[in-house]
Amino acid sequence: MAERFFQHTFPNGLTLLAEQMPAVQSAAMTLLLPAGSATDPVHRLGSATVLSDLVLRGAGARDSHQLTDYLDTLGLQRSSSVGIHHTRFGVSGISEKVIQGLPTYADIIRRPHLPPDGFESARDLALQSLAGVDDDPRQKLLIKLREWHFPSPFGRSSLGQKDTLEKLTIESARADYQRRYHAKNAIFAIAGNIDFQQVKDAIASQFGDWNGANQVPLEVMPPPGNRHHEHQDSEQTHIGIAYPSIPETDPDYYMMRLAMEVLSGGMSGRLFTEIREKRALVYSVWAGYTGLKGMGSIFGYAGTSNERAQATLDCFITELHRFSEGISAAELARAKTGLKASTIMQDESTAARAGAIAHDFFLRGRIRTLDEIKNAIDAVTLDQVNAYLKTHKPGPFTIVTVGPKELRIENV
Amino acid sequence: MAERFFQHTFPNGLTLLAEQMPAVQSAAMTLLLPAGSATDPVHRLGSATVLSDLVLRGAGARDSHQLTDYLDTLGLQRSSSVGIHHTRFGVSGISEKVIQGLPTYADIIRRPHLPPDGFESARDLALQSLAGVDDDPRQKLLIKLREWHFPSPFGRSSLGQKDTLEKLTIESARADYQRRYHAKNAIFAIAGNIDFQQVKDAIASQFGDWNGANQVPLEVMPPPGNRHHEHQDSEQTHIGIAYPSIPETDPDYYMMRLAMEVLSGGMSGRLFTEIREKRALVYSVWAGYTGLKGMGSIFGYAGTSNERAQATLDCFITELHRFSEGISAAELARAKTGLKASTIMQDESTAARAGAIAHDFFLRGRIRTLDEIKNAIDAVTLDQVNAYLKTHKPGPFTIVTVGPKELRIENV
Repeated sequence: MAERFFQHTFPNGLTLLAEQMPAVQSAAMTLLLPAGSATDPVHRLGSATVLSDLVLRGAGARDSHQLTDYLDTLGLQRSSSVGIHHTRFGVSGISEKVIQGLPTYADIIRRPHLPPDGFESARDLALQSLAGVDDDPRQKLLIKLREWHFPSPFGRSSLGQKDTLEKLTIESARADYQRRYHAKNAIFAIAGNIDFQQVKDAIASQFGDWNGANQVPLEVMPPPGNRHHEHQDSEQTHIGIAYPSIPETDPDYYMMRLAMEVLSGGMSGRLFTEIREKRALVYSVWAGYTGLKGMGSIFGYAGTSNERAQATLDCFITELHRFSEGISAAELARAKTGLKASTIMQDESTAARAGAIAHDFFLRGRIRTLDEIKNAIDAVTLDQVNAYLKTHKPGPFTIVTVGPKELRIENV
Repeated sequence: MAERFFQHTFPNGLTLLAEQMPAVQSAAMTLLLPAGSATDPVHRLGSATVLSDLVLRGAGARDSHQLTDYLDTLGLQRSSSVGIHHTRFGVSGISEKVIQGLPTYADIIRRPHLPPDGFESARDLALQSLAGVDDDPRQKLLIKLREWHFPSPFGRSSLGQKDTLEKLTIESARADYQRRYHAKNAIFAIAGNIDFQQVKDAIASQFGDWNGANQVPLEVMPPPGNRHHEHQDSEQTHIGIAYPSIPETDPDYYMMRLAMEVLSGGMSGRLFTEIREKRALVYSVWAGYTGLKGMGSIFGYAGTSNERAQATLDCFITELHRFSEGISAAELARAKTGLKASTIMQDESTAARAGAIAHDFFLRGRIRTLDEIKNAIDAVTLDQVNAYLKTHKPGPFTIVTVGPKELRIENV
């Protein structure tokens, strides 16, 4: 069997990652540029989001309309998004069409037109997207929870704020493009029915002479506090709870991940069983790990009716505390099976694989094989998980609510 | 190469469909029972939804807790949902575990405990899910649009209504189970790394002696009207437009589907280009085909700020009318590429394939190969699409809005 994973860093700092999947016809690519909301200019939050739209409005020899038409002619499914660390462009399609589209993505990233009328549209859409959050209290809660939990600028929403979006100009967008769209620390990952040497040659020719500079320093500040209530007239209350955890690169990572599976993985997860199935307090409840570079946190959510909101919050916190008493051997066995099954099944999607190898490289500087992940999961013992839970008690909690009235926070 | 598709109908009326995908490790199954919201008892709307939860709360030799634990021990990802025609159970996982779980699904479908305390929880959750719609005006709009567009009972929401859910009792749920959970017209579809003969033997032994009776007649009535406004205080207005189309089994189906790709497929789709990209009127706009058995409709949606709502509605209707003037050769070429690419890529997901073969069989009584679909797309000519659009002008429109104020409906 031929080698499956490939990794190459070009002299300008761009890293190419590839996973060959000969059994499929498609390919998916993920391009991560170090232009996330954490490096948005402080008075221009949301700038990366506007830019990720604006670069698609004409590039190289094609105007906005021609560019869109051309990529649709190749049958490529595209996405773009902005996270804390990166602006991400995703493409998937029949593998030869994805390769054929690479020079156009080089145009988009390196030679965008950044037209003034396109800027107005892109900013208007960003403002509308932000206004739409008012109609989505669950999304509003999750945005506020990040903001009140993570140290600034890591809790920023990529949507920006109304006043900062209104301050954006075509000139500021162009300056921000010059500042943040560079090769250094950019990651280009591709997975699917591809030939590594062919992709490497294409990337070398399209991106090899791309400017490598990218230095955007961060000023880290504590969050505003750890309790927040956002008033919203509604029949529903949305509850968010967050507390610090370990980074993904910590040697104890899979002890924590397996413990989290017991708390909220599968349908036998404790939160689901105790709060939803037994007590029917909520329609939706979950908790999960969120990793940033060098830090990690647990985020939990429950959405419920106003009458049940206080009982839900109390019950949620009780379950989190009970967690540090440890888990059973049967719970661990189920958690291992569940985590390995989702790892194996992710293996069958080119888009999931491209995202996974890019994420691995960003956090670890290398790609892990699926066997390595499976072995790490298998190696965890019950004693290790329970020792981990004993020494990593949940808390301190950040608690945010959205609804018509504040809740009492008692048993934390 | 071994045969890929298999189909077998058992004497009791249950049909088994299978697609062998030897290149993957996983398998996914879809079980469709003819217990959709269309056959909910008229004073007990939402009954199928409650039942789809209740049957999972203990079955065969296992109580609710043991059942959940056991399926998690197999690492199976499960889902259940209720549509117009069917209650659907989905399972995916490593292929041998999916097969190993089949006897448990036979317990769930044929030998559920239907316990009173489980019933109370299931109904409470259904009520909460319904209440949650109030916090999601987009979902509310789409529910109302179906209700005002389709003849009853085909426009029903599977969530039911507050008063009808409150009328449900454990006795009514048990009676409804007896009435609707039967083998006749049930469809069991599986796709992945499986052996057809092995699955067939397992299904024969688990479901072969299942009672076949299932006769639930429908009384079809016209919808309440074709204009509806739902007041909601918000910064946003949500607009829904629907009009009749052809059923999926119509020989002209791919002419219509390719035309719809031009209207709203990919990023060069006309609605996206004209309403979002050029005029920045909306953050989200789309239109798509929805097929039921023997009927089909086009559903369109736009979400926008209140100030832009009137212009958005006018512009949306203008684009729909312009549509009947026809499309260009370049637009058709892009539409064909896009539709074929998504067909091929769907081919790489076992869950998507299990769903697709079940859907095919329900509408057509047989499974189509991907080549058959690709050939049908390729065979469509520009003249055919334009003749279709000329003879199938959009309308009559059902128009539903959710927001703080009614809009004028002028150019329909």
